[in-house]
Amino acid sequence: MWHLYQHTLCPFSRKVRFLAAEKGVTVELVRELPWERRDGFIELNPAGQTPVLSDGTLVLIDSVAICEYLEETVERTSLLGSGAAERAEQRRLIAWFDQKFYSEAVVPLLSERMFKRVVARAAPDAGVLRAAGRAVEGHLDYFDYLLERRRWLSGPAFGMADIAAAAHISVADYLGGIDWDGHDSTRQWYSALKSRPTFRPMLGEKMEGLPPPPHYDKLDF
Amino acid sequence: MWHLYQHTLCPFSRKVRFLAAEKGVTVELVRELPWERRDGFIELNPAGQTPVLSDGTLVLIDSVAICEYLEETVERTSLLGSGAAERAEQRRLIAWFDQKFYSEAVVPLLSERMFKRVVARAAPDAGVLRAAGRAVEGHLDYFDYLLERRRWLSGPAFGMADIAAAAHISVADYLGGIDWDGHDSTRQWYSALKSRPTFRPMLGEKMEGLPPPPHYDKLDF
Repeated sequence: MWHLYQHTLCPFSRKVRFLAAEKGVTVELVRELPWERRDGFIELNPAGQTPVLSDGTLVLIDSVAICEYLEETVERTSLLGSGAAERAEQRRLIAWFDQKFYSEAVVPLLSERMFKRVVARAAPDAGVLRAAGRAVEGHLDYFDYLLERRRWLSGPAFGMADIAAAAHISVADYLGGIDWDGHDSTRQWYSALKSRPTFRPMLGEKMEGLPPPPHYDKLDF
Repeated sequence: MWHLYQHTLCPFSRKVRFLAAEKGVTVELVRELPWERRDGFIELNPAGQTPVLSDGTLVLIDSVAICEYLEETVERTSLLGSGAAERAEQRRLIAWFDQKFYSEAVVPLLSERMFKRVVARAAPDAGVLRAAGRAVEGHLDYFDYLLERRRWLSGPAFGMADIAAAAHISVADYLGGIDWDGHDSTRQWYSALKSRPTFRPMLGEKMEGLPPPPHYDKLDF
């Protein structure tokens, strides 16, 4: 049995959960708050970050390594595509979300709206939130551009880029960081993702003391 | 013919160059300074980052996507390993260098010692450099730990984790950010990498106005 060390507002954990569900792999969730730096968890992953997937013997660390492992070992529809060029485009967009969208949008939102409220008990910095808002706006324009030309983010087929995108966007949306006005293409794509039974259950989870905005789990938003 | 848009102190570009050389793939280098935000380059890669590999038709973006593409398409010794678990360990360490070592060590060094000197014409912040030094020390302790148990970083065979590590460590070393004292295991491993004809030529390159320390390209350092 796989155990996934994760927490509900970790976008990299959400990515692995969504992908595992699409692959039909059952994982038992273990709640792990990495900022507590629990000894047993640091022993498991010296980088101290979620997610970690383990069956008790094998320890898989880093969301990209975990997703590639599941892609390689679980015989089911490929989520990376069938040719090397297709896979390169999926991986380009995964890196876009894991690095660019994460650092410009998700990190400041997590820091100001989650960490300061729940852990540090301090007020958020309005300037940081405004800068994150402008970054999100630029990103949504780019996703609109792609989705006006493609059925899914990376091309005609649903894949790992959509999974990575949904993971990061859903955390930003939980933290009130997404203004959907004027982004109909991305909104329509995200509504389709929200209705997937492999993704939908995550939208029902709440972090204590930090409720999401009312539109967060609605299919019509 | 492949063209690689890169610059000499970009660790992600160095990773692709080292890997391409190991795979026997010839690439023509195009010098690209991403902070100049050249229009033609932004058109090629909307993320605005090096490296980009293109043959004129296919455009490959993001060092992980490029390395996986070359691994998939070039028939030569695998640099990721032969089993899914082995590949997961290589990818875990690649992420360690691309994210953790890069953000904690390479980014502050590039910012204080390269960007401030060559672009912003400002003095480096000693506090930031001290924090980077402490981070490097912790990383080297971990690499020593691994290399006392393994021939190469990821296991018995040379692979992509060593390539990623050499790319990031060599940039930090160029910028005077590595104190090798007391890290004999990592030093010995790095000396073996420095002597590889696929990596050695990069150590001869200089950035104008920013010379590396004297030990930088020596095999005995």
